[in-house]
Amino acid sequence: MRQVEDPVRAEPETSRFRATVAYDGADFLGFQLQSKGRTVQGVLEVALAQVTQTTVRVIGSGRTDSGVHARGQVIGFCADWRHSMEDLHRALNAVLPPDVAVLDLDRAPEGWHPRFSAMRRHYRYTVLNQPLRSPLDRRYAHHVARPLDIRALQAGSRTLVGVHDFAAFGQPTRGESTVRELFDARWRQDGPWFTFDVVGNAFLRGMVRRLVGALLQVGAGFWPVERVAEVLESRTRALAAPPAPACGLCLMRVEY
Amino acid sequence: MRQVEDPVRAEPETSRFRATVAYDGADFLGFQLQSKGRTVQGVLEVALAQVTQTTVRVIGSGRTDSGVHARGQVIGFCADWRHSMEDLHRALNAVLPPDVAVLDLDRAPEGWHPRFSAMRRHYRYTVLNQPLRSPLDRRYAHHVARPLDIRALQAGSRTLVGVHDFAAFGQPTRGESTVRELFDARWRQDGPWFTFDVVGNAFLRGMVRRLVGALLQVGAGFWPVERVAEVLESRTRALAAPPAPACGLCLMRVEY
Repeated sequence: MRQVEDPVRAEPETSRFRATVAYDGADFLGFQLQSKGRTVQGVLEVALAQVTQTTVRVIGSGRTDSGVHARGQVIGFCADWRHSMEDLHRALNAVLPPDVAVLDLDRAPEGWHPRFSAMRRHYRYTVLNQPLRSPLDRRYAHHVARPLDIRALQAGSRTLVGVHDFAAFGQPTRGESTVRELFDARWRQDGPWFTFDVVGNAFLRGMVRRLVGALLQVGAGFWPVERVAEVLESRTRALAAPPAPACGLCLMRVEY
Repeated sequence: MRQVEDPVRAEPETSRFRATVAYDGADFLGFQLQSKGRTVQGVLEVALAQVTQTTVRVIGSGRTDSGVHARGQVIGFCADWRHSMEDLHRALNAVLPPDVAVLDLDRAPEGWHPRFSAMRRHYRYTVLNQPLRSPLDRRYAHHVARPLDIRALQAGSRTLVGVHDFAAFGQPTRGESTVRELFDARWRQDGPWFTFDVVGNAFLRGMVRRLVGALLQVGAGFWPVERVAEVLESRTRALAAPPAPACGLCLMRVEY
C-alpha cells in the first residue's frame, strides 16, 4: 500500500506576497535597485533576505524617483515562509530601517502582478505657499514664496484630465507609448497649503513633477492657462517647465 | 562757536533686536552653544557674523534639548546694522541653513530680555498612536503602539496644572528653585494623533519630556492616574518615568 503523501509537504513552500509599503524618500536614490546607492527596493530585499534566509526579488507597482515619498507603494515578492503572515509582517518591520515600513501584507491573488495588474495610481504633491520657508515642513513640502492662484491651478489641471500623449511631461521607461490616461487632477487649498491630487492609469518617468512644474507656472501667473494645453499638444519636453522638486511628491495609493 | 554734533552719528550704531526663530531640531545638539557639535545658537551666531561682519552673541528665551524642534523660539541679539530691518531679515534667512529660519524680526523694546522677560512658554508634544510606525511621521512625532486612553491622559494632566515643585520632572539650570507654574496642560485627539499642549511660566531641563513620559504611562494603563500626583509630591526624579523622545516636542510660542 502506498503511503498517503503528507499534505503539508505537498503544498508548495514558496508563496507570492503582496504588501503596501510607506517610505520617506529623502535618503533614497529612488525605489528601483541601482548598481550604487541606497534604494527602497534594495533595502526591502535586504530585509527579506535577513528574515527568510533566502534571496528575494521585490517588484514594485512602479518606480518612484530619488527623493519621492510613498504612503501606499505596492510590492510583490515570492518567498519561503512557513510561519504566520503576522510573523512575517512583524519580522520585516523589525529589521527595516526607520524610513521604510510595511503597512500591510497578504498573499498575492493568483495571476496578480504589482506593475501590470495596477489600474490606478494616485500621487499627491504638497506645496507650502507663503513668503517664508519653514524648517519643519521642508522635507515633505515644496516651498513657493510667490502667491499662487488656486483658480488658475485648477483651470490648468482640468486640461490634463483624459487620455493624452504626455511626451512633453516625461519619458517612457523603454521605448513604449507615451499615452496615459488621467482620471482626475485637482488642487485643494487649506490656508498656505496647496495639495495636488492626481490619479492616472500610469505615469511616465518624472511626469507628476513636470505636470506640477507647469501648473505652478500657471498658478504663479508666469504662464497663461492655455500654455498647459499647448505644451501638452507639442509633445516636446523642451517646452515644459522644470519639474517641481521631489520632496513634495508622495505615491499615495495603487489600485488593482 | 562749537559745532552742533551730527545727530545721526550721535545715535548709537548698535541696536538690540528680537526675533522669532523656527528650527528642525533633529540635526542639532540642542539650542545652546556647546564646545563641540552643531547648535541652533551657534548656527544663528555664524549667520549673524556673516551678515553683519561682526561677532554677535545670541540669547534665547530658553534652551531646547538635543532633537527638540521650535516653531516659535524667541531670541535677542545686539548688532550693528545700518540698512532696513527687512534687509537684515532677508539676509539672515538667505545664509541660514534649511533647518533654521527667522520668522520675524523687530527692534527689541527697551529693557527687554529674551529669557527674563518671558512670561509664558508653550510647548506641544505630538504622539502618533497606532500599531504601525510611520516613516513619514517619525521625525516630528513619537510613535506609541499601545492604545492610549485620552481620558486617562487628561486626568493625569489636570493634576499638573498650578504651582508645584517639579523637582521629580527635571533639573534647574543651576541650583535655583524647582517650583514652576503650569497655566494649562491638555491633550487633544484627532484620530491616531495625540497632541499635548502645555503652557507654563518656565520649565526645568527635560521637564516637558518627563511630564509626557509619565502621562504616557497613565494613558497606556501602566500607571493609575494618582501616581502622577504621587511622583510630583515625591520630588524624586528616580520615581518618574523615562522622558518621552525629543522628536515629538516643539517649542510653539513664548509670550512676553
